Amino acid sequence: MPSIEEIPAREGRAIRVGRGQALKVINTFGTQVVDFWAFDARDLEVHLSMPHTRAALSRLTPRAGDVLVDNRREPMLSFESDTSPGVHDTVIPPCDRARYLKLGCAADHASCAGNLRLALASLELAVPACPPSFNLWMNIPVLPSGDLEWRETVAKTGDSVVFRALVDCVMVMSACPQEVIRINAGRPVSAQYALLAGESP
Amino acid sequence: MPSIEEIPAREGRAIRVGRGQALKVINTFGTQVVDFWAFDARDLEVHLSMPHTRAALSRLTPRAGDVLVDNRREPMLSFESDTSPGVHDTVIPPCDRARYLKLGCAADHASCAGNLRLALASLELAVPACPPSFNLWMNIPVLPSGDLEWRETVAKTGDSVVFRALVDCVMVMSACPQEVIRINAGRPVSAQYALLAGESP
Repeated sequence: MPSIEEIPAREGRAIRVGRGQALKVINTFGTQVVDFWAFDARDLEVHLSMPHTRAALSRLTPRAGDVLVDNRREPMLSFESDTSPGVHDTVIPPCDRARYLKLGCAADHASCAGNLRLALASLELAVPACPPSFNLWMNIPVLPSGDLEWRETVAKTGDSVVFRALVDCVMVMSACPQEVIRINAGRPVSAQYALLAGESP
Repeated sequence: MPSIEEIPAREGRAIRVGRGQALKVINTFGTQVVDFWAFDARDLEVHLSMPHTRAALSRLTPRAGDVLVDNRREPMLSFESDTSPGVHDTVIPPCDRARYLKLGCAADHASCAGNLRLALASLELAVPACPPSFNLWMNIPVLPSGDLEWRETVAKTGDSVVFRALVDCVMVMSACPQEVIRINAGRPVSAQYALLAGESP
C-alpha cells in the first residue's frame, strides 16, 4: 500500500514523480479545492499547460483518460482516473497575494501561488513565474452567457484523481486557502496525496 | 485623422502606446483573427493576463466597457469599444512552431508566438515567454458539454476594437497565419491598426 501523506490546510507540497509513476490526490473531506501543477524535472521552464491542453483536447476541462500536455505541446501526464464528478477548473488563475489584498485580507495571507514557491523551495527548486494551475474540484461553471460563477465543490469525501507521469516530473499541490469566496465551502481544510508505484504507462 | 498602418498577412506588429492613448485594431476584411498582447512599458514581465482578467470579470471573454488586468491583477487596459459581434477568445494559446509541426507544416511556418518575438525585436525588446493572448475575433464557442469548437470568425468587414492604455504600454498584434484550421476562413489576410490620440481615460 502506498504511503498517504497530508497536505495541511492552506499549505502546498511538492514531490518528484518519475516517468511511469503516478500521483494520487485525495479530497479527504470532499470540500477542498487543490491547485495542481507539474514541471519537467529536467527543465522547470517546461510545465503542464492548461491553455495548450485545452487546445489539444478541444475541451475546456480535462477528464479521466485524457493526456495533458506541456507548454511545448508535448504529452506530460496521463489523467488516469477520477472518482469525483469531474468538476474541475482551468480558467481561473491560482490565488496570490494580490488577490487577497484586494479581498481585504492581510498581506501575509497564504495563497496557492505562494504555496507553489514554498513547496518548490522545499526541494531546493524555483520557477520564474507561477503557471496557470489545474484547479482540482474547483467549481467554476461557464454559463451560456459566458459568465463564470464561483460555486462550492461538488466532490465527495475521499474522491481522488490520479496523474501518471509520462516524463520525469515535479508535481505540486496546494490546498487552496481561499475562505472569502466560498469555493472551499468557506473553510479551507487539508487534503492528501500518495505516490503510486510505476507501471508501464 | 490617425494614420492607419497595415499588419501584413501572417505578420506581427508592436507599438508603444502611452498612458491615455489608445490602439484601434481593424479587421480589414472581416475574416481575420488577430492575436493581441500588451506589456507594461516599464517592466515587460508585467503583461495583460487573460486568466486574471477572466477572474476579475467573472466572465470568459471581455467585452467593450471592461477593464482588463495584468498578471498582478492591476488595471492595464480599458476595452473601450467593439463594433464587431464581440466574439473573441481567451482560452486557446497563440499558435507556435510546435503547433504547425504537429499539423504537418514546415518548421519555418509563421506563428503568432513567433510574430510576438519578431515584433518586440523590432522595438529592441524581448520577453522570456509568450503570455496567453487575447484572440480577437477568434470564434471558439464553449458548448454545454465543455467541448470547444474551432469556427470561422463572425466579424464583419472593417470591424474594429479599441484598447485605451491605463499605463504606458507596448502592444503587440499578430495577423494569425493559421490556414490549416479554418479559424481565418482558410486564408490568412492582413489587418490594420491605428494609434489614437490621448484623451483622459
